[in-house]
Amino acid sequence: MEIKVLTDILEANDAIAEQNRKKFDESNVVVFNLIGSPGAGKTSIIEVAIRKLKKKYRIGVIEGDIETSRDAERIAKLGVETLQINTQGGCHLDANMIASALTGFPYQSLDLLFIENVGNLVCPADYALGEDAKIVVISVPEGHDKPAKYPVIFRNASLMLLNKMDLVPYCDFDVEAMKQDALNVNPDLDVIGISCTTGEGAEEWAAWLTERIKRRKSRG
Amino acid sequence: MEIKVLTDILEANDAIAEQNRKKFDESNVVVFNLIGSPGAGKTSIIEVAIRKLKKKYRIGVIEGDIETSRDAERIAKLGVETLQINTQGGCHLDANMIASALTGFPYQSLDLLFIENVGNLVCPADYALGEDAKIVVISVPEGHDKPAKYPVIFRNASLMLLNKMDLVPYCDFDVEAMKQDALNVNPDLDVIGISCTTGEGAEEWAAWLTERIKRRKSRG
Repeated sequence: MEIKVLTDILEANDAIAEQNRKKFDESNVVVFNLIGSPGAGKTSIIEVAIRKLKKKYRIGVIEGDIETSRDAERIAKLGVETLQINTQGGCHLDANMIASALTGFPYQSLDLLFIENVGNLVCPADYALGEDAKIVVISVPEGHDKPAKYPVIFRNASLMLLNKMDLVPYCDFDVEAMKQDALNVNPDLDVIGISCTTGEGAEEWAAWLTERIKRRKSRG
Repeated sequence: MEIKVLTDILEANDAIAEQNRKKFDESNVVVFNLIGSPGAGKTSIIEVAIRKLKKKYRIGVIEGDIETSRDAERIAKLGVETLQINTQGGCHLDANMIASALTGFPYQSLDLLFIENVGNLVCPADYALGEDAKIVVISVPEGHDKPAKYPVIFRNASLMLLNKMDLVPYCDFDVEAMKQDALNVNPDLDVIGISCTTGEGAEEWAAWLTERIKRRKSRG
């Protein structure tokens, strides 16, 4: 019974996500849904991308948080369009929250839209929002055993950003084992190691995004 | 409508949790429900407690994971009673999973039972399992802004274990600000800083547990 309810919810969500995707497609905006645990560094990763790309592309951010608008305030300082969604206890964003947010948000004028999901490696993985791709953000101190233990998000993501690479010397972390575990779960996963502190991987992250934006524009 | 379903589920869960609690009380076993993000160090924290206390007390562990039995294998090596629950995608343990597990688990012969929840700072916070107390495990690299952003678990926990204190020199982390934020959410919260790498805080963690076990025995 509980499973039936969940299936209904996911189907209803997917239908709304398709409507969101259609709107994004019509406006030629590329949309990424960033998913990771609290503190994995999702906001910092977005800040890096904005600094690298804001002269070239029009960027916007929708911030999903249970409470507070701390992340949105950080992003707004960089001078890009920012909108905060507070889920009031909810453990993930859903497509309907995004649909509601879009009525007051000028996504039509953007090239690139980041949606930062609630900090949670589990629940957001199941909910399509209308994005072009999911990006999983995981950080070195979380340990290299995570893809096997939390496979759904690694299966559903197009890119894994392995953040806080600067902490490798201080953690019991095997970078190659982590990558291999992730690729075992999803052989098509792109992987970029990054550090928002040292700047490692920032160019590669910006290039990955640029490639996606160009691909969309050539199609549009 | 969705909220009504959730309320029903939580009420049904609480009723079963009460039955679990009654069983634990009758057997004089103290039970802790450990909640934290993936990679916060919940398993390591339990390992530290087992090493410190296993000569003095009879300890058992129920491991909750979405998939794999890696954590249970780590714990079983220390020679304590261990049981793995795989939620098959579920984002938290619930009281019924624990009730089912207890039929095959000799909790009656224990002084201390740890239940390690699924790695998730959000959803497990709402589900009572029959525990004496919830313990929130949060690690330094996750950042000091977490209590305000994820308040429910900090409100519902009796103890915050601030793990990976050895990484403070390498992270932009304000220990005092973090403690103050947590106490703002829950003034009754106990706080212990700990590092499973250096051993910092291990004595204090063992003393906290010992106090709870003694209190139970004097009552029983």
